[in-house]
Amino acid sequence: MSQHDQPTDDAETGHLVYIDGPESVEFREYEVPSPEPNAVVTEVEQTNVCGSELHVWRGDHPLMDCVLGHEAICRISELGEKVETDSAGQPVEEGDLIAPVYFQTCQHCEFCRRGEFYRCANDYEYAGESPDVWPHFHAPWGTHYYVHSTQNFYKLPEELEETPGVAAAANCALSQVMFGLNETGIEYGDTVVVQGAGGLGLNATAYANERGAETIVIEGVDTRLERAEEFGADHTIDFREYDTVEARAERVRELTDGSGADVAVEVAGVPEAFDEGIELLRTGGRYLEMGNVRPGHDIDFDPGKLVRKSIDVTTAVEYDPWVLYDALEFLANTKDKYPYENLLDAEYPLRDVETALEESENREVTRATLVPQGN
Amino acid sequence: MSQHDQPTDDAETGHLVYIDGPESVEFREYEVPSPEPNAVVTEVEQTNVCGSELHVWRGDHPLMDCVLGHEAICRISELGEKVETDSAGQPVEEGDLIAPVYFQTCQHCEFCRRGEFYRCANDYEYAGESPDVWPHFHAPWGTHYYVHSTQNFYKLPEELEETPGVAAAANCALSQVMFGLNETGIEYGDTVVVQGAGGLGLNATAYANERGAETIVIEGVDTRLERAEEFGADHTIDFREYDTVEARAERVRELTDGSGADVAVEVAGVPEAFDEGIELLRTGGRYLEMGNVRPGHDIDFDPGKLVRKSIDVTTAVEYDPWVLYDALEFLANTKDKYPYENLLDAEYPLRDVETALEESENREVTRATLVPQGN
Amino acid sequence: MSQHDQPTDDAETGHLVYIDGPESVEFREYEVPSPEPNAVVTEVEQTNVCGSELHVWRGDHPLMDCVLGHEAICRISELGEKVETDSAGQPVEEGDLIAPVYFQTCQHCEFCRRGEFYRCANDYEYAGESPDVWPHFHAPWGTHYYVHSTQNFYKLPEELEETPGVAAAANCALSQVMFGLNETGIEYGDTVVVQGAGGLGLNATAYANERGAETIVIEGVDTRLERAEEFGADHTIDFREYDTVEARAERVRELTDGSGADVAVEVAGVPEAFDEGIELLRTGGRYLEMGNVRPGHDIDFDPGKLVRKSIDVTTAVEYDPWVLYDALEFLANTKDKYPYENLLDAEYPLRDVETALEESENREVTRATLVPQGN
Amino acid sequence: MSQHDQPTDDAETGHLVYIDGPESVEFREYEVPSPEPNAVVTEVEQTNVCGSELHVWRGDHPLMDCVLGHEAICRISELGEKVETDSAGQPVEEGDLIAPVYFQTCQHCEFCRRGEFYRCANDYEYAGESPDVWPHFHAPWGTHYYVHSTQNFYKLPEELEETPGVAAAANCALSQVMFGLNETGIEYGDTVVVQGAGGLGLNATAYANERGAETIVIEGVDTRLERAEEFGADHTIDFREYDTVEARAERVRELTDGSGADVAVEVAGVPEAFDEGIELLRTGGRYLEMGNVRPGHDIDFDPGKLVRKSIDVTTAVEYDPWVLYDALEFLANTKDKYPYENLLDAEYPLRDVETALEESENREVTRATLVPQGN
Repeated sequence: MSQHDQPTDDAETGHLVYIDGPESVEFREYEVPSPEPNAVVTEVEQTNVCGSELHVWRGDHPLMDCVLGHEAICRISELGEKVETDSAGQPVEEGDLIAPVYFQTCQHCEFCRRGEFYRCANDYEYAGESPDVWPHFHAPWGTHYYVHSTQNFYKLPEELEETPGVAAAANCALSQVMFGLNETGIEYGDTVVVQGAGGLGLNATAYANERGAETIVIEGVDTRLERAEEFGADHTIDFREYDTVEARAERVRELTDGSGADVAVEVAGVPEAFDEGIELLRTGGRYLEMGNVRPGHDIDFDPGKLVRKSIDVTTAVEYDPWVLYDALEFLANTKDKYPYENLLDAEYPLRDVETALEESENREVTRATLVPQGN
Repeated sequence: MSQHDQPTDDAETGHLVYIDGPESVEFREYEVPSPEPNAVVTEVEQTNVCGSELHVWRGDHPLMDCVLGHEAICRISELGEKVETDSAGQPVEEGDLIAPVYFQTCQHCEFCRRGEFYRCANDYEYAGESPDVWPHFHAPWGTHYYVHSTQNFYKLPEELEETPGVAAAANCALSQVMFGLNETGIEYGDTVVVQGAGGLGLNATAYANERGAETIVIEGVDTRLERAEEFGADHTIDFREYDTVEARAERVRELTDGSGADVAVEVAGVPEAFDEGIELLRTGGRYLEMGNVRPGHDIDFDPGKLVRKSIDVTTAVEYDPWVLYDALEFLANTKDKYPYENLLDAEYPLRDVETALEESENREVTRATLVPQGN
Repeated sequence: MSQHDQPTDDAETGHLVYIDGPESVEFREYEVPSPEPNAVVTEVEQTNVCGSELHVWRGDHPLMDCVLGHEAICRISELGEKVETDSAGQPVEEGDLIAPVYFQTCQHCEFCRRGEFYRCANDYEYAGESPDVWPHFHAPWGTHYYVHSTQNFYKLPEELEETPGVAAAANCALSQVMFGLNETGIEYGDTVVVQGAGGLGLNATAYANERGAETIVIEGVDTRLERAEEFGADHTIDFREYDTVEARAERVRELTDGSGADVAVEVAGVPEAFDEGIELLRTGGRYLEMGNVRPGHDIDFDPGKLVRKSIDVTTAVEYDPWVLYDALEFLANTKDKYPYENLLDAEYPLRDVETALEESENREVTRATLVPQGN
Repeated sequence: MSQHDQPTDDAETGHLVYIDGPESVEFREYEVPSPEPNAVVTEVEQTNVCGSELHVWRGDHPLMDCVLGHEAICRISELGEKVETDSAGQPVEEGDLIAPVYFQTCQHCEFCRRGEFYRCANDYEYAGESPDVWPHFHAPWGTHYYVHSTQNFYKLPEELEETPGVAAAANCALSQVMFGLNETGIEYGDTVVVQGAGGLGLNATAYANERGAETIVIEGVDTRLERAEEFGADHTIDFREYDTVEARAERVRELTDGSGADVAVEVAGVPEAFDEGIELLRTGGRYLEMGNVRPGHDIDFDPGKLVRKSIDVTTAVEYDPWVLYDALEFLANTKDKYPYENLLDAEYPLRDVETALEESENREVTRATLVPQGN
């Protein structure tokens, strides 16, 4: 893996988006690598601007001196030796569209070795590398993307081939909420309250809905409240109207015969939402805390409330990589039911990446996507 | 159940300990009831003074105008119609020693109806009644105790018949920690750190040890540190020596190849211990919060730490009633290995109950037990 | 429970269908009982002729000298003392339509006592009684039905009030397959092969479909193959066309990228189907055996095949009673998607019960239903 | 992995045991390889003659033209690049004793990719290779053994360093039964009946015993019955005395208050034992079928019995590789309690491998071990 390709005169090259400091993005050109055994080289079909790219761009994130991007759909351009199928055993060939897991599962850390892939200790070993290091295309904001032998990837279902944008976020938000909700043991007939209707929240609402849950979404922005309904919310609670924790908890109890929700999902990313979630649950409820991904903000919290109400809390950052296969199936099954395509509201060629970043940062667009091959 | 027995001249009577206000305990005499179908009338063999009785005695607890007691071993004096076995299907007859679950599982609330017995909404329906209400003997501080048809009870294993005191706390502390540790999915080879070496902590240590875990106990009292070792602690951490959260967390990491514990158990009953527990765990660890049973005390808490470390939290108050059967088996198997009898350090006849309460409150004794039949 | 009501001149009476020998059915009239505490007296709205009633009628079943029926929707006519909600905590009052679990969970046997309700040792204690024993109306083929305090029951969701027939089989086939499929750990994206498209098979297909599985149904009758598609089968295999085990197994592999199914469900009720199911599964697959409810027929079977393919087998007769609540929610959610009403193709007043039995036995009707109140 | 070492004059060489046909074993000498990144080269400390080697030797097994052996303890002689810890994160260095998993988990097949490691489709990719293919030392019957980057390995616990023989079978029988029994959900207080007291059976008995189960072992050989007791059997059933299935089932019921066992473990390797196991279980029991590893023998079997008794069946061939870590901890904890060292009754230098095979085949020894470095 440390082997370096020798640049040659007639080698094919590609471009990628490199960031070396806050708001300092540049295009770089590198030779397109040949894949090692079990690896795959791809051309990037579509890749989104997610919140974490904005964090890096602002300098509000430890990653720097690296390639940007993680949500993507790619087209196989060269298969490494031994690669005959995707990670689910489906035959693949050059030209196929695939969704890659955006992090590796190294297979050598103590977590991978005991099957806790979602906790791989070396998940960003490649993604955080400088593009000067072979194979250069470490992240998908570029014309090419290198999928390592330690990354799961899945063929795009036929039903999605014409609309790859529907699946461009499958390897991030959707896989994440599917993994998390599965961990809560979500059952048919559960009532699930979703705190926040951003990308994670909408995907969580659709998935909970398809698993047979009754869904309640709490939000305070009109467009997001509307979208929540489009993504299957049975009820919404506008927190401008229900403007205290107690009012929202009371509203949830009204909607649940006085009990409270079976499952709550924190995807607001606000530390105080954690405490609120406990109030929304029934005795014996299960809580999925996903939104507060970065430590550093204390809240007032009473552990006795957890015990008194017999609450179980589970958490999720990243996911077991095979969940992405299920996520793609989910999209294929439900693409006509939920307006996934509306989640992306602006498309840019790769060269306009700075515009995409600026317009996203200024909230002129909700969710931008880059189309490198249209370049 | 609402039927009242008619007092008759030659009816057998018994005594019980009634509390009607802070430190106001009195003996009362009532006719011994006959059991309804599926119920059992018992004579109390041994019944302990647990922390919750002290809370009630001090007036620091909502229960009042009721009979005291919950930990007990009893002897069957009359079997109700249809009762041929205990709740595990073992044949029973008059004269047998049994351990009753101290709360009922009503079978009619929404929790019982979906098998979540440990959350029965009517758990104290009988235990909190005035003794003036038939069948009077609602709790085990008395000569008799009435085991309702909705209470599980189990025959004392033969191995414990000579030393019923070993099992007198089985229906409280031991069943509680077995239920809770089972909920964490404790596995052979896990490292379990126990925060606090009181009754719950010692039982948790012994059970974790027998399940094949490596155990670490954190305490600050010499006698409890010694006892922790007697109950199977592989390592102890004296928090007078390791006097900061960081020092204790570092010590746990030293004992676990740098990782942190797989499982932590909060049985200190101190709100701040909840936050400390998160620090003691490895990434991907599981936390059992049991000690903070009463809400009302806020701590500073950072929900982002839960997510960053992929921690799952589970909680336990009460237990699925069949766990008591396993608890008795556990004691029968391990009674020669751990000094359960040393947990009780003073024995009183029932008439000396006030002395027992006062000496327990003043910490002249660690754990007192009442022997009503020795009266 | 053994108390007998005293017949009085002006007491209300009802009728029930009593069977005392093969094809010997008679109407009997009894006083309508008053409910004990926690019990409910109902008028029967609709009750089906299921295969087991035909078995009893033919004399091909141990039950005899009893009231017939088990699938039913009933209307509450009198609530026993303490009954304020159904078994899910939903408020109920006289006049509400409910679905009762058709067996009791006694709460006293060793199985109930450890939460394994689906295995209650006394499940038919009441259902098998002679109607001469109070409260007479032990099974729902009658004008009235007595729901004991040990039977879970659930309010019919509002969405089903106009079409109770949709839910008349909820307490049998649908609850049964939901319980069984949950036991297999069915996951989003699994491929499920259903062996047989009778009532259990169609319900299993719909439920698997709603849980996000890809479904394959094997059948050999045209109308059933069509119905399988109406109930959500993604693929059907006609075993007249694929006329060997190997041909059917090969077809399943074709439909699953060569692997075989993740889950198989045996609801054909043919012993040989058990062996075939193993062939249909992928390595590591899970098998739900439900159809062969009565022992007595040996097949040739190679246990080494189970091990070689790492197959897990689970079984289901009856169900945890709270599953019926989920079943009703399932019907409310999907009643416009699957043609449940078509499963019942003939309706009879109670007095025509013999016609209903005969026409069912002669397969003139597929599934008959009785409407006692229309009498 | 395809890179070949260049033979050099002064290269170190080692020997291995090669089999090219029935009873045709020869010594071969190859250059000791250097490890690839993430791989480890070892010297073999001790390696056993297990039943599967006898099958290969007899020609009664598809493997041929390969190196023999799978149970082993090895000493690290050279660490590949990047290897700083074992698969549990414990630091390792040259000279450390380790236990390697005997099969690889390729990380690329569809089973590995979804975390079902115990079903890796390429498990024997290396183990079945000809020794002419680099790195030659594909199995542990040799002076050296090459541990691939896709094989988990674990440092021998300190407590076992002086007696590596205790752990020589950890990577086969013990890991296998621990994995299987964990799959059954074995709980404290379960009664476990073990069908057969060979290596798997004795390890299963010890593990079930340590998990708090009551154990019953069925055997028909005196020495094995004695050994079963040494390995923790609470009861043994001699099938010469209880000489029918019904007699044995009745005896199990006698030992379980009339119920039957909670868990049964088939490790007799006799197809008929599968059917017998169903009879030994209680209603609702769980069956672990492990012994019939090779298909090809039909028995008479009634699937209706499975359903009637609500039996779940699970199976196990191989294991999730991290179970080996737990197995080593188990041995370290219990080595003074169970006489593991007695399971090996003859030790041979590597050059006497044919004697070891012959004496094992003739049952002159029960379990032979080879000590290559003593050569």
